[in-house]
Amino acid sequence: MTKVTRRGLLSMAGVGGVGAAAGLAAGFLGHDAVAGAEPPPQPDSDTVPFHGERQAGITTPAQDRLHMAAFDVVTEDRDELIALLKDWTAAAAAMTAGKEAGATGAVNGPYDAPPEDTGEALGLSAGRLTLTFGFGPTLFEKDGTARFGLEGRRPAALIDLPHFPGDDLQEQRTGGDLVVQACSDDPQVAVHAIRNLARIAFGKAHVRWSQLGFGRTSSTSRAQQTPRNLFGFKDGTNNVKAEDGGLLDEHVWVPAGAPAPEAWMEGGSYLVARRIRMHIEIWDRTSLREQEGLIGRTKAEGAPLSGGTEFTAPDFGAKGWADAPLIATDAHVRIAHPSQNSGVRMLRRGYNFTDGSDGLGHLDAGLFFIAFVTDPRTHYVPMQSAMARQDSLSVEYLVHTGSGLFAVPPGVRPGGYVGEGLFPA
Amino acid sequence: MTKVTRRGLLSMAGVGGVGAAAGLAAGFLGHDAVAGAEPPPQPDSDTVPFHGERQAGITTPAQDRLHMAAFDVVTEDRDELIALLKDWTAAAAAMTAGKEAGATGAVNGPYDAPPEDTGEALGLSAGRLTLTFGFGPTLFEKDGTARFGLEGRRPAALIDLPHFPGDDLQEQRTGGDLVVQACSDDPQVAVHAIRNLARIAFGKAHVRWSQLGFGRTSSTSRAQQTPRNLFGFKDGTNNVKAEDGGLLDEHVWVPAGAPAPEAWMEGGSYLVARRIRMHIEIWDRTSLREQEGLIGRTKAEGAPLSGGTEFTAPDFGAKGWADAPLIATDAHVRIAHPSQNSGVRMLRRGYNFTDGSDGLGHLDAGLFFIAFVTDPRTHYVPMQSAMARQDSLSVEYLVHTGSGLFAVPPGVRPGGYVGEGLFPA
Repeated sequence: MTKVTRRGLLSMAGVGGVGAAAGLAAGFLGHDAVAGAEPPPQPDSDTVPFHGERQAGITTPAQDRLHMAAFDVVTEDRDELIALLKDWTAAAAAMTAGKEAGATGAVNGPYDAPPEDTGEALGLSAGRLTLTFGFGPTLFEKDGTARFGLEGRRPAALIDLPHFPGDDLQEQRTGGDLVVQACSDDPQVAVHAIRNLARIAFGKAHVRWSQLGFGRTSSTSRAQQTPRNLFGFKDGTNNVKAEDGGLLDEHVWVPAGAPAPEAWMEGGSYLVARRIRMHIEIWDRTSLREQEGLIGRTKAEGAPLSGGTEFTAPDFGAKGWADAPLIATDAHVRIAHPSQNSGVRMLRRGYNFTDGSDGLGHLDAGLFFIAFVTDPRTHYVPMQSAMARQDSLSVEYLVHTGSGLFAVPPGVRPGGYVGEGLFPA
Repeated sequence: MTKVTRRGLLSMAGVGGVGAAAGLAAGFLGHDAVAGAEPPPQPDSDTVPFHGERQAGITTPAQDRLHMAAFDVVTEDRDELIALLKDWTAAAAAMTAGKEAGATGAVNGPYDAPPEDTGEALGLSAGRLTLTFGFGPTLFEKDGTARFGLEGRRPAALIDLPHFPGDDLQEQRTGGDLVVQACSDDPQVAVHAIRNLARIAFGKAHVRWSQLGFGRTSSTSRAQQTPRNLFGFKDGTNNVKAEDGGLLDEHVWVPAGAPAPEAWMEGGSYLVARRIRMHIEIWDRTSLREQEGLIGRTKAEGAPLSGGTEFTAPDFGAKGWADAPLIATDAHVRIAHPSQNSGVRMLRRGYNFTDGSDGLGHLDAGLFFIAFVTDPRTHYVPMQSAMARQDSLSVEYLVHTGSGLFAVPPGVRPGGYVGEGLFPA
């Protein structure tokens, strides 16, 4: 892991910043000492490009850690919202390149102003940081009234998600006008990014909810091994992956040809976020047989109970003893399978979480589900409706405690800003 | 990072476990497939020894991630408590060696019983996992009544911490009969360890509070660089380190020669845990000058404002313009310095945390302070009393929201169990 970029900025603070001209101030003795000791800046090999046709953080091979935050916009001024998106874009481009969030950074002055970076990522590499931005339904309208001059611009696919059986959504973990998904292999880098975007938003937007994920539960590239969720099972074996070009176009990206008010979403996607609490204590007292039966796969290998290895297609017709199906009719792998869901697929990018205890003697732990889909009306709602009713795993061991749906605009070209297609000049 | 140990166990499941004898059951097709594909077990180089004179996780070079949990013991039966400590010891020895928590593991049967490991660490190395156990005051007595036959065994140093100015302790984040500190470079491994200890404790103890830390804030070895806290400053520059043999004896370990009822603590230590919420949003709007003045060090290098580099001793007598001290009289580095605190030192081992949002538009973030000291009466309470009153940083930007003090017994010899000196046969 290279550590040069942000350290390189430190050295510049001493030689070109305020420090060199203000040696009398006590605080600058240290700056000068740093300047002499730092190596020259070198390119950072640990970065994911920010600009591009699509936003990064979707097909990017899933990083190890997540910090996601939703924001409520507290201004009603369209220009202030646009200014915020521009400021976020500039900060995101810098931070994903391993640089500090602002031009003057954490330590290179002016000495009598708040630093434009909070500093806790000084000395760390970018850790493959990606920042992915999305817009919630409430950005477009609230209580029946359009906001920010966005009358008629809300995409039809950006629905209000229905109530699903078993939902126990907490208001303070649900919704939001804006969302930012920060993924990095270093959690300090992901937290630093969200924290600095929140700092930049001061007076315009504030944090509605925030979620840390400590372990990814899906691979989004064939080069990655399938990780395990907190049920101890491999998760995301059948995930859509970066290499699946045609599947991505069909199931993940918003296609060209949308009606004019929605054309700004072409090349974008829809982000479904669901905070899924797992009843792990109850799960841990069930037998291995029951666990594998509920999932429909083996625990060790992740192979379907109809046989084979992890990537063998499940055979839902296969029968065993007493003519019972080898994969039960209520098994998770069956209910969630594309063949049972009109062929739809998702690109899942979720993370395991543990948020302290629940006050009842249990860990508050589970799966923070994240999926990117071309249209949640076809690619999320029907499947989640089926799972919430028929999938015994969902019914007995899961409860959804938070939820969000966000329109993720396409990527940003150099000089542009995130979501600018929504705000014609 | 080696991945062999737990994968090695998987292969044994296929050849020696229930799987080989039960090929008819659908679930075992997968197990058999695994068995053929797995490499033979190899030694894991990524482990910290569990047994020893001292518990690991104190002077062990600080790992990157933390999961700490406090437990309430819900049985009042001394034998059940001892049985729990024995079970925890066996599981801890296994997990810190990169093995599964129980003899039958997550996948190697019996097929009709709950697995003795929850499985989410399958395929992961130990990641230098350490598990460090401690006993809270309420293990010894509650509401004035002794528990578990421990009359007179509570060490005098295991005090009830006083209320400090500015404390805003939440009951559900404070206290606990037992504590377990899990540290690993892989958060999934640390969470897995706490989760499996909680599973083992079912019916005897349950989770009172649990805290994840995503980034270490102290180095405990001279081989480690000093990390940064969420104020963006290096933290723990002056920490006691593993290499400081004499200082450890003086400031961290409980010495020999204690009165008989406390002899079981010889070679142990006391763990102070404090959940310190930082008002980072307010901090982020202060100038670099004010930030450095409050800390008493430069932000870039961490050098004292009296000059030099990070490890230069601060000169509290140094004066600058208008005869003002270069390090302010209320600067954190001054108030916390051993020279201002009767020469006492601590071994700090804290972690940065972010626990979602506070419902008021801010991140709930800060420092989970952990320190190991020879006696909290001399080595924590006076310093914290001074800081809570005189340190402007503490007064203006910090609020303590959780607290715990635990007696950490010495290490476990092979065949013994943690804390056995407290329970003579």
